Amino acid sequence: MNLLESKMDAVSKSVNEYMLSYLREREPRRLYEAATHLVKAGGKRIRPFLTITMCKAFRKEEKYVIPVAAALEIIHTFSLIHDDIIDRDKTRRGVQAVHRKWGTPTAMVAGDLLHTKAYQIILDAAVAERELEKVTLNLLSAVNESIIRVCEGQVLDEELEKEKNPSEDQYLKMIEGKTAALFEAAAVAGAIVGGANGFQIEAARNYAHELGIAFQMLDDSLGLTADEKELGKPVGSDLREGKRTLPIIHALATADAKQKVILQHVLGNRKASELKVRTAINTIQRLGSIGYTTRKAEEHARKAQEHIASIPSSAERDTLEQMAEFVVRRRY
Amino acid sequence: MNLLESKMDAVSKSVNEYMLSYLREREPRRLYEAATHLVKAGGKRIRPFLTITMCKAFRKEEKYVIPVAAALEIIHTFSLIHDDIIDRDKTRRGVQAVHRKWGTPTAMVAGDLLHTKAYQIILDAAVAERELEKVTLNLLSAVNESIIRVCEGQVLDEELEKEKNPSEDQYLKMIEGKTAALFEAAAVAGAIVGGANGFQIEAARNYAHELGIAFQMLDDSLGLTADEKELGKPVGSDLREGKRTLPIIHALATADAKQKVILQHVLGNRKASELKVRTAINTIQRLGSIGYTTRKAEEHARKAQEHIASIPSSAERDTLEQMAEFVVRRRY
Repeated sequence: MNLLESKMDAVSKSVNEYMLSYLREREPRRLYEAATHLVKAGGKRIRPFLTITMCKAFRKEEKYVIPVAAALEIIHTFSLIHDDIIDRDKTRRGVQAVHRKWGTPTAMVAGDLLHTKAYQIILDAAVAERELEKVTLNLLSAVNESIIRVCEGQVLDEELEKEKNPSEDQYLKMIEGKTAALFEAAAVAGAIVGGANGFQIEAARNYAHELGIAFQMLDDSLGLTADEKELGKPVGSDLREGKRTLPIIHALATADAKQKVILQHVLGNRKASELKVRTAINTIQRLGSIGYTTRKAEEHARKAQEHIASIPSSAERDTLEQMAEFVVRRRY
Repeated sequence: MNLLESKMDAVSKSVNEYMLSYLREREPRRLYEAATHLVKAGGKRIRPFLTITMCKAFRKEEKYVIPVAAALEIIHTFSLIHDDIIDRDKTRRGVQAVHRKWGTPTAMVAGDLLHTKAYQIILDAAVAERELEKVTLNLLSAVNESIIRVCEGQVLDEELEKEKNPSEDQYLKMIEGKTAALFEAAAVAGAIVGGANGFQIEAARNYAHELGIAFQMLDDSLGLTADEKELGKPVGSDLREGKRTLPIIHALATADAKQKVILQHVLGNRKASELKVRTAINTIQRLGSIGYTTRKAEEHARKAQEHIASIPSSAERDTLEQMAEFVVRRRY
């Protein structure tokens, strides 16, 4: 584990503790078990790390921002639960998806509960801490706006799945909602609590915007190439679900007629055999689509670094710069 | 239309206008169309009426409270959309359920969008109006707490469907979450914006608690006895879905062996014939379960009236008293 990863690990621990104490079970237990299932399963906690590091970059103590960081991770978890229902995913973070274990009704409501609890965390923290109270309306608005964009991105994703010739522009618009919006909210929330000024908040947003795009692009690559154990979900499921990820879009645009047949056979075909999926992934690799995606991800990571360079220098700013490296270098 | 109904109608119009202007369509249109579908289909707007009337009972102008009332109705709509997915209902408010028209993924996200927009309405109103700003954290906490209880009630409902001998206590606990919680939030929000003191806010909550229970009980009766056109959904669907409503619980507890067979045949049996459902409803009626439910609803309505009597006298207080009559007298 390198220095960045050990920092992320430390943040993970305090945020996890906070989340679980906040989500302690009441009746009906079934609901709270379902709601905490993915929280307990771990995860990289990139969003809360972003919130906390950004806040500290503006010299504010960590304790003020932990509830806000926890709220952002809870929102992320809520969106994962609803996402998995939509995509009919069976596993997530190496464990059963919530709707597979508790059924769709409870899973849907568990998502709604987390969505609501996220606001409550911020509200409760605001009542307990005057420092937070003054920025709470701003904070909630930023969080809200990002969830609205996540919803919009979600439906764009659904629409894109029906698209025969999806464009990179459509893809970008989709991930700007689905992924970048919450990264932005995480960074902006950290900056707001940290007491950043308007320009600095914009820099934080632009940084996280590019970071989120880079993150998603690399996720798309990993979805086709990662080690299944490390990924926590089946490799190639994007293909079977008919997702229009960047490598898939690139491959569709560059494939010859024969390769197109190979790709089209598995795309959106949940019953495609292991072998056919494997062949399609090999085709995508041979077309250079993984390399293309990685390069694009690196471009966005570089842009993220440029944006963050405009906030005052600090150890935390360095960490945020390293984060941009991390999201495009990670193997899980 | 009597005086109360024409007052409700006037509130409906201003709240509808506000909701639709707030939810005006942006991209992706599919999402916003799905989200506004049930808003456009009408509805009694009891919750926003409660918010506005309660606020005016404390002498605050209507304009301050309309956004808050609209937010409550939007939360109600979000819960209906998710509810219909869970219950696999086909129609609502006389139109197709959202998930039947746009599919479950878009419907689920449309619910999430409305959930988020409801907070945004309150936040935006707080920024525009200093009078609201000071009470916003209180307001949001009250709304939040109620949604958490709605989620809990939703899962209790699911658990109750598996119960062979459901009790009235379990039923009460379930509807206290599923229905009463949002009624309470509506009334409490109105009282908070109106500037009520702590005791008055508690009176408003207790009133709405009883009102919500009475409302739900009568809803349960109407679900078995109403005119299908007026109801906006199929009569008897509670039976087919295996819902443990109060008349059904009462009938199960008082039925003889032969009657039990009739009831058990349709309960949770989505393929039960029209005739069998009709026979089960007749059985429930003969067992006096509809009468029992109506009497219980009236008891709670009376309690609601007692609670509201403790706030200062006004024309609006009279209206709130009449509301308690209305919810148990209505035929739709």
